Amino acid sequence: MHKDQPIHHGSLEHLLPPSWKTQILAWLAEDTPSYDYAGFVVGDHQRTATLWGKSAGIIAGIPFFNEIFNQCGCTVEWHAVEGSYINRPKDGSGKTKVATVTGPARGLLLGERVGLNLLARCSGIATVSRDLLLSLRSAGYEGILAGTRKTTPGFRLVEKYGMLVGGADTHRMDLSSMIMLKDNHVWSRGSITEAVQTAKMVGGFALKVEVEVQNEEEADEAITAGADVVMLDNFTGDGVKVAARSLREKWKGKREFLIEVSGGLREDNVFDYANNGKFRRKLHE
Amino acid sequence: MHKDQPIHHGSLEHLLPPSWKTQILAWLAEDTPSYDYAGFVVGDHQRTATLWGKSAGIIAGIPFFNEIFNQCGCTVEWHAVEGSYINRPKDGSGKTKVATVTGPARGLLLGERVGLNLLARCSGIATVSRDLLLSLRSAGYEGILAGTRKTTPGFRLVEKYGMLVGGADTHRMDLSSMIMLKDNHVWSRGSITEAVQTAKMVGGFALKVEVEVQNEEEADEAITAGADVVMLDNFTGDGVKVAARSLREKWKGKREFLIEVSGGLREDNVFDYANNGKFRRKLHE
Amino acid sequence: MHKDQPIHHGSLEHLLPPSWKTQILAWLAEDTPSYDYAGFVVGDHQRTATLWGKSAGIIAGIPFFNEIFNQCGCTVEWHAVEGSYINRPKDGSGKTKVATVTGPARGLLLGERVGLNLLARCSGIATVSRDLLLSLRSAGYEGILAGTRKTTPGFRLVEKYGMLVGGADTHRMDLSSMIMLKDNHVWSRGSITEAVQTAKMVGGFALKVEVEVQNEEEADEAITAGADVVMLDNFTGDGVKVAARSLREKWKGKREFLIEVSGGLREDNVFDYANNGKFRRKLHE
Amino acid sequence: MHKDQPIHHGSLEHLLPPSWKTQILAWLAEDTPSYDYAGFVVGDHQRTATLWGKSAGIIAGIPFFNEIFNQCGCTVEWHAVEGSYINRPKDGSGKTKVATVTGPARGLLLGERVGLNLLARCSGIATVSRDLLLSLRSAGYEGILAGTRKTTPGFRLVEKYGMLVGGADTHRMDLSSMIMLKDNHVWSRGSITEAVQTAKMVGGFALKVEVEVQNEEEADEAITAGADVVMLDNFTGDGVKVAARSLREKWKGKREFLIEVSGGLREDNVFDYANNGKFRRKLHE
Amino acid sequence: MHKDQPIHHGSLEHLLPPSWKTQILAWLAEDTPSYDYAGFVVGDHQRTATLWGKSAGIIAGIPFFNEIFNQCGCTVEWHAVEGSYINRPKDGSGKTKVATVTGPARGLLLGERVGLNLLARCSGIATVSRDLLLSLRSAGYEGILAGTRKTTPGFRLVEKYGMLVGGADTHRMDLSSMIMLKDNHVWSRGSITEAVQTAKMVGGFALKVEVEVQNEEEADEAITAGADVVMLDNFTGDGVKVAARSLREKWKGKREFLIEVSGGLREDNVFDYANNGKFRRKLHE
Amino acid sequence: MHKDQPIHHGSLEHLLPPSWKTQILAWLAEDTPSYDYAGFVVGDHQRTATLWGKSAGIIAGIPFFNEIFNQCGCTVEWHAVEGSYINRPKDGSGKTKVATVTGPARGLLLGERVGLNLLARCSGIATVSRDLLLSLRSAGYEGILAGTRKTTPGFRLVEKYGMLVGGADTHRMDLSSMIMLKDNHVWSRGSITEAVQTAKMVGGFALKVEVEVQNEEEADEAITAGADVVMLDNFTGDGVKVAARSLREKWKGKREFLIEVSGGLREDNVFDYANNGKFRRKLHE
Repeated sequence: MHKDQPIHHGSLEHLLPPSWKTQILAWLAEDTPSYDYAGFVVGDHQRTATLWGKSAGIIAGIPFFNEIFNQCGCTVEWHAVEGSYINRPKDGSGKTKVATVTGPARGLLLGERVGLNLLARCSGIATVSRDLLLSLRSAGYEGILAGTRKTTPGFRLVEKYGMLVGGADTHRMDLSSMIMLKDNHVWSRGSITEAVQTAKMVGGFALKVEVEVQNEEEADEAITAGADVVMLDNFTGDGVKVAARSLREKWKGKREFLIEVSGGLREDNVFDYANNGKFRRKLHE
Repeated sequence: MHKDQPIHHGSLEHLLPPSWKTQILAWLAEDTPSYDYAGFVVGDHQRTATLWGKSAGIIAGIPFFNEIFNQCGCTVEWHAVEGSYINRPKDGSGKTKVATVTGPARGLLLGERVGLNLLARCSGIATVSRDLLLSLRSAGYEGILAGTRKTTPGFRLVEKYGMLVGGADTHRMDLSSMIMLKDNHVWSRGSITEAVQTAKMVGGFALKVEVEVQNEEEADEAITAGADVVMLDNFTGDGVKVAARSLREKWKGKREFLIEVSGGLREDNVFDYANNGKFRRKLHE
Repeated sequence: MHKDQPIHHGSLEHLLPPSWKTQILAWLAEDTPSYDYAGFVVGDHQRTATLWGKSAGIIAGIPFFNEIFNQCGCTVEWHAVEGSYINRPKDGSGKTKVATVTGPARGLLLGERVGLNLLARCSGIATVSRDLLLSLRSAGYEGILAGTRKTTPGFRLVEKYGMLVGGADTHRMDLSSMIMLKDNHVWSRGSITEAVQTAKMVGGFALKVEVEVQNEEEADEAITAGADVVMLDNFTGDGVKVAARSLREKWKGKREFLIEVSGGLREDNVFDYANNGKFRRKLHE
Repeated sequence: MHKDQPIHHGSLEHLLPPSWKTQILAWLAEDTPSYDYAGFVVGDHQRTATLWGKSAGIIAGIPFFNEIFNQCGCTVEWHAVEGSYINRPKDGSGKTKVATVTGPARGLLLGERVGLNLLARCSGIATVSRDLLLSLRSAGYEGILAGTRKTTPGFRLVEKYGMLVGGADTHRMDLSSMIMLKDNHVWSRGSITEAVQTAKMVGGFALKVEVEVQNEEEADEAITAGADVVMLDNFTGDGVKVAARSLREKWKGKREFLIEVSGGLREDNVFDYANNGKFRRKLHE
Repeated sequence: MHKDQPIHHGSLEHLLPPSWKTQILAWLAEDTPSYDYAGFVVGDHQRTATLWGKSAGIIAGIPFFNEIFNQCGCTVEWHAVEGSYINRPKDGSGKTKVATVTGPARGLLLGERVGLNLLARCSGIATVSRDLLLSLRSAGYEGILAGTRKTTPGFRLVEKYGMLVGGADTHRMDLSSMIMLKDNHVWSRGSITEAVQTAKMVGGFALKVEVEVQNEEEADEAITAGADVVMLDNFTGDGVKVAARSLREKWKGKREFLIEVSGGLREDNVFDYANNGKFRRKLHE
Repeated sequence: MHKDQPIHHGSLEHLLPPSWKTQILAWLAEDTPSYDYAGFVVGDHQRTATLWGKSAGIIAGIPFFNEIFNQCGCTVEWHAVEGSYINRPKDGSGKTKVATVTGPARGLLLGERVGLNLLARCSGIATVSRDLLLSLRSAGYEGILAGTRKTTPGFRLVEKYGMLVGGADTHRMDLSSMIMLKDNHVWSRGSITEAVQTAKMVGGFALKVEVEVQNEEEADEAITAGADVVMLDNFTGDGVKVAARSLREKWKGKREFLIEVSGGLREDNVFDYANNGKFRRKLHE
């Protein structure tokens, strides 16, 4: 994996559901709730605007950006593909031509702020995801780096999309797409076993079940009960290594499961984590 | 499992997301798009109405029914719990008192048709699900009976809920909650292996991947590539038995997976299916 | 009327209001609430899919099906017209080519389940309606066969449409489009006369008023008060015949009204009904 | 009928469908799309405001006004009932206390403009409707006075409600609640007979059919084809009288129908109209 | 300014936000909530309809009218520009051809009533605004004529648009776009000074603040506190003149502000107002 | 201004429009689009959860957080007021009890992630705003610090609210609430004068107009044309000082206007900016 190449060869735009374009209209309406006074001033003569990249990083969010301008009557021509790395240009200009937008002057201004707000955030998330992943890879980590549900309310589709562009796993999209059982759930049901079985009663075989455990005994109970993922909570770095090796050996050939470790990973402590196994990864791969 | 006892001890109402009540209002609006002329005639004197059960079956859909009447200013008192079996009464009356609804006369009539339409469908699905499950159990089948995405557009939340009340597995809720790869996907990517890997690139570790296979070789490839569920397509009854046994032995201690068989199950061919393994079930349990 | 010919010569698509396409998007969103993972796998190469008819019956729901695929970027070419009867083919293949859908592979799969769910239900309703109507006609009944408001919440527009394709009368669409007065309304107002007059005070001359009556005296009162339709409730088969003849003669040349009988009609008791007049029909035609 | 008494003894609020309160929120949002700056200034101390009637007329729109303030956290106490006539007070103050609104200062101001805008328009329509009706009654007219579909887009529910409060018939609510056939429809189908039959094919027996006719021959054709209402278009005053009498006699004891005349009625030409029968009325009652 | 020339040389359509087309669909749905029965009768043969202007006045609302028909599959060709004055034709026909609408017969009828309702109201507001403005100009008034928030709930965008076409100032669009402080706000905060400062704390420098004052001392306090507009409330005609002159001289070279006078202006008292300065105007221009 | 005291004495919750609660439901639906499987496991026993503050900063977003939990059936008791500074506790625990949430176990978990996501972002924005403002104040700057429209699409109401809690000016909320004219607008109209006059033609006297200028001559033209705010673009630090002083003296006693400088302000270059006047501030106060 080279940092200047996009990670995905398919088109991530194909992930977007039929309904996502409706949300774009609501975002445009947020920025122009009643009249577009300046639009009256500028009129609708055909104009061209250039999107300049002024800092290095990955471009992410192209299908959203395209649709924002499409709804404003404009078209976008891209000079970089989704997920590609924009370097500082070597010509000293300090900026790179990323896209050209063409359409009525008024449309360009209507879409400008919404488009840039979206693209900046999505690209930022993609860039941070990728940088972190590259750091982990150089530190020798070969597992999965996954995101969280700590996204801006109403903007998750875009933010998770940015993670994917950057090479991170989205983790579950929402409470409806993987069942995660924490201490509260276990207490409510009396035991991990009871909690996992109750979850499977309604989640069925189509959804995975993840259980947060405090020690190896709880991990064993969760795995026995049918958990697909076990999250080690509050383990020390060494504790993670010991527990992971132990669980892996104990269950080898009996049950398959993933071990997940969460929290606190930052660009500046990557080596620490990579050394002690403190992040999400698959055990059996 | 006795047919007169509800299957779930928890409350399935707890599955419903915060947003589901909004849908109820849209259903009421469908039935009264402009004026409620008869409501003007009947007025809002407090009245009580009885919900009678006239045929045997499981009651399902209570939280929806309650909310429909709640939005019409009425309250519902239930004489049977969700999932309980309503038998033909022994007193010869031919009907059983299932619930009592109290509120303004106009509210009772506004909620009546929407409430009954929902309850009848939901209870019907629960009853059919349960009957089929009981038949399978008496035929010796111990696996899972799961539903499909063949639901009425806009009404899936209720219909899948009915399956749960009846003891069936909902299978995946929608295209976003488990990745199922069929021949089209495989063709597009060139091989099962490529298709599964592409799916995991975006679905990550939180979602399961199911692959439809035509023969045992394809099943092996899917399992190797990381499929969580393998669906045997167009296998004869014996073919299913042979393939399932073979796959189970071959992969024992190496990989975990489920085998799913789909299609054509009806009340009148249950024994046939139970004998040749033609339905969804877990292999390793 | 021959069973293989569509009943309507106009296009029922012309009945659909400008707003109905919005509903389609919500149905697509129900089936793909967040990402379309399998869509990423399959991509957007142009593909063609065939819709096969595997059982005999009427095709109904074409405009809805078209719009579902239109919103997924696909086009549909039909090999049968709305309302036509699909027979089992004579070539032994057991299936008939009904339509060809062309578009990006991903679009075909996004629209497939929603499209088939809708078409199957709509066609089923049309087929049952038509079969029942044909049975009634062969039993000599020449009146109207009408539907009910017992439709799936949120799906009435499609289900009533299926009735129309099958030759049945939709009866009233909702509580706002004909005023029906039952015992509750009469009790609230003290008398049938009072209830009908109150209804006309708000419904005006543009809406019809129907009154449910228990005997001929009540029917007379309802007709005198201005009811447009009288529903005979809980009459025996002979009772219906006697009452209908008596009312017809008594009011001849004085008032026009329809007599409606409801409930319990099934394919297997058609002759019974046709003999004793137990269904909706017009008296004066 | 005395001009100072409300026309309806029931409560017109009972006509409003369950969904109407959602519209209120959209109207409040139109008036406060983002922050309520002045609300921050005024705070939420409990305050009381008085609604004064400053001109004579009927009060109409009370349930809407109540709900507007309810959504702003306020309650309304009324000193006049819906439909009552507010006279100029005899105490010389020039204004009458109509209602008292209590709630947080901020809530009073949030609801004020939306509430008054609605109440003023609704009351105005009710007052004009009633005045016109009273004039017609004094001129000896005993038929129906009905409204049109010429309402403000998005506000029809309120405007038709105002007509009802004022004693006018709403006529049809929308294109879905009575079928009206004009010259275009007739031309499309070739004849009035064909157009009416086509309409009945889809509208069924639950909806009335009205036909616009240019002369008595067309009226006869429409009535023969099953029209429930016949609208005489472009008839002179005398022409209406002649045609109405002729149609009435010709069809007596054969068919029931209404005759409608439309257009051009104003307060200042009431007697003219009453004399020549130029307005909507029932023939056979 | 000549009464037959449009006031704006730019295109007011450019004021409309990206989201406004969604509202059009809701208006069409109001008029056709379920089936379009008459549309089935008339079919979709291509037809042309003419919009005739039958009374003199300004045309306003063209972009809305166009979009209504666009959503019904029709196109509109205009024979007059937005804001132009339609005179009674000199050919004695009494009507002027304003626009030609082309499309499927059914589409023409679906859009007809909604389109005319909107155009009639918007044009009416534009005409009244312009007539009043012209009267004021002939009476020598050179200030601004501004509208109010007394608009039909849900229809403000169109009604304010009509004012603009007619040459009037829209005044503030809603509670979020200028802060107006009245007696309630002042009482809540103890003084005008305190109220203005509190408003500026949240409104910031981007919003104007207007204060309603009862006398010159209050006006001075408001201006000192930073008010951008001062509204003279309950001043006599002479009082306005005296106060305006006094304020203007006192603050000359110190602070800039506008003086606004509101209420009671009608076509028949224009001269009265123009003589005593009773309307909104700018002081410093 | 002391850093541990909230800046506003009124309640910023009073700024929120009646419609904002609807948005909360959409955010909850984003996190639980279909079933709440873990909610079924945990049930609805009454439970209490504590919100701990683990890093120093300002609390912002309380009304949103309250409503999120309100919609989940829970209540929140706060141990800190909106805008108060949460210090690291001196007891060594490293965390401060900020709020206690009580309600059904399932409700606590449904609201948890959405609530924390919102509160964390809102508090972060408030904290950064306040820190920057305090730095500017210590550097001697007494003007206004204002935000931008660079907010997350769909989340502006909350983000601007966070700025207000932190003491920053929101600047304009959207394109509809202040007219800002940049080079594009000027080019379209030929001159600054023409652009400002065109803007005032539609924006009227209720909206401010801001003009971006490149030099003092343009500033003079803008002010002459009636601009309320002049933004100095691409001026050096000294250039700003010179131009501001020059404009201030030249226009003293003639016109009032604000000078705005934008871009590039960060915590680490505050003194630089404060020294050369590079940020938004009022000139005449």
